[in-house]
Amino acid sequence: MFIQTIDILGTVAFAISGVLVAMNKKMDPFGVFIIAFVTAVGGGTLRDVLIGATPVFWMQDMTFILVISLASVFAVVFRNYIKHLRRSLFLFDTIGIGLYTVIGIEKGISADLHPVICVTLGTMSACFGGVIRDILCNEIPVIFRKEVYATACILGGLAYFGLDAFLQDQNLLFLIAGAVVIAIRLVAVIFKISLPSLYKKNS
Amino acid sequence: MFIQTIDILGTVAFAISGVLVAMNKKMDPFGVFIIAFVTAVGGGTLRDVLIGATPVFWMQDMTFILVISLASVFAVVFRNYIKHLRRSLFLFDTIGIGLYTVIGIEKGISADLHPVICVTLGTMSACFGGVIRDILCNEIPVIFRKEVYATACILGGLAYFGLDAFLQDQNLLFLIAGAVVIAIRLVAVIFKISLPSLYKKNS
Amino acid sequence: MFIQTIDILGTVAFAISGVLVAMNKKMDPFGVFIIAFVTAVGGGTLRDVLIGATPVFWMQDMTFILVISLASVFAVVFRNYIKHLRRSLFLFDTIGIGLYTVIGIEKGISADLHPVICVTLGTMSACFGGVIRDILCNEIPVIFRKEVYATACILGGLAYFGLDAFLQDQNLLFLIAGAVVIAIRLVAVIFKISLPSLYKKNS
Repeated sequence: MFIQTIDILGTVAFAISGVLVAMNKKMDPFGVFIIAFVTAVGGGTLRDVLIGATPVFWMQDMTFILVISLASVFAVVFRNYIKHLRRSLFLFDTIGIGLYTVIGIEKGISADLHPVICVTLGTMSACFGGVIRDILCNEIPVIFRKEVYATACILGGLAYFGLDAFLQDQNLLFLIAGAVVIAIRLVAVIFKISLPSLYKKNS
Repeated sequence: MFIQTIDILGTVAFAISGVLVAMNKKMDPFGVFIIAFVTAVGGGTLRDVLIGATPVFWMQDMTFILVISLASVFAVVFRNYIKHLRRSLFLFDTIGIGLYTVIGIEKGISADLHPVICVTLGTMSACFGGVIRDILCNEIPVIFRKEVYATACILGGLAYFGLDAFLQDQNLLFLIAGAVVIAIRLVAVIFKISLPSLYKKNS
Repeated sequence: MFIQTIDILGTVAFAISGVLVAMNKKMDPFGVFIIAFVTAVGGGTLRDVLIGATPVFWMQDMTFILVISLASVFAVVFRNYIKHLRRSLFLFDTIGIGLYTVIGIEKGISADLHPVICVTLGTMSACFGGVIRDILCNEIPVIFRKEVYATACILGGLAYFGLDAFLQDQNLLFLIAGAVVIAIRLVAVIFKISLPSLYKKNS
């Protein structure tokens, strides 16, 4: 129940971020909905396809389509007020990537995959919806350029497997991993930390 | 036999539309063929991958590769005359999306998926070849911006499941669904109807 | 052992080419790694997904992630010296596509697919990593515009199936197919041969 609530909040935040990007590109209602949908479920869909967990997750639970539809309509109607919700949305989004990372790791473990692949799947679940959104909008994906987004997911995944030897309780491990993702993302945004640049300043 | 003929005409129309877009981008012969191929089978391929129907359909029936190859050669050779065929191509294309929508719905039903997912799969089969074509050509997908394309497919799918309670004959249902897609697309193009804009006129 | 060495050299060459493209786009370290990864394994991943060979190959053998990580760090650190390695990289890359083509054909044969599909899978394995790289970098894929890359792979595949009737030894067939790919690519680059243009010179 608790997890499902977080999952829905994360989906809402991702869908709304998709709506905002799509409306910036002057898309029509169909385009806006597709971008919202892809942003919310694209990462998990890619994960399911790569490990062969088909039909993919959102085809087996109608909650996702319903929630994304409602969130899209809400975001379109109240688009002028959403800026006041920026802080809530950022919070949902951050909690969302924590949860998505954990769900991805869990799916990898169930499929008996190597820990490195599990961390990859967690990061993919959390981050690749945004990548597909940016490709469909004809942009270079933003997380390839300046976000700590993916780094937070990777470190959360490493925390899970790093503590695996010391803790027996898998639920506790998942909780810690999610918390690490969320904490790193919050700290990075609050203190404006980003990955070290590979390029000279004045280039 | 009748269905196969329509399927081939639809594939030809989609492939030719791919050739024309690729030649606009000054692609070489290999690029032109790939874009033609992706336009014609991309939507169905995505559908098959997401529901786990692999190897995907065009790997199991050589007709598709053959038809797309011939259509591509034809379109390249007669590119200066194709404008005179514009009306025929539009008709093939419209009949094609009607059929592709129905095939997608049928595949979803066979896989025991929820009606909403079946409608999604129908729409995806008909529309996502064009989306992948536009991404490969570095454009924002045209159906996200101004076409009634997808809406026609969705309404056709809804017609299928809306009449499901009243009609026993599945073939008749498929025929009606396809006809709805085709009728809506024709009406929309003839009367220049598009989705209501989300944006102010002078923005 | 011999094949594995070639596979690793090919992966290294592909990964480094990804790093160079990503750094041209001023991506951050995470983006650079993802582009290197996708360039190296993207074609094989698409092949595995389309034929349903999941989890995809790099999830089952940690060598790929390891090699790509090391190659990426190497390429970033020594980016100013890599131009002196251009000839070696071109050679690795060319040997790599020869091998990737053969691996793709082999996978298609194991899955009992039609020869035409096997050739397609070989070409896809060798070429589509670069296509996905270019899409993520917001470019029209370079092999759609001016490379003999794909043509070499297709001709190598045809050589395999053309000689199939005359030669019993499958290993010999694979060797010949790989050699054809490599030879055509070398000849095309050395003599600056490209596909005949579909467009008038001054257009």
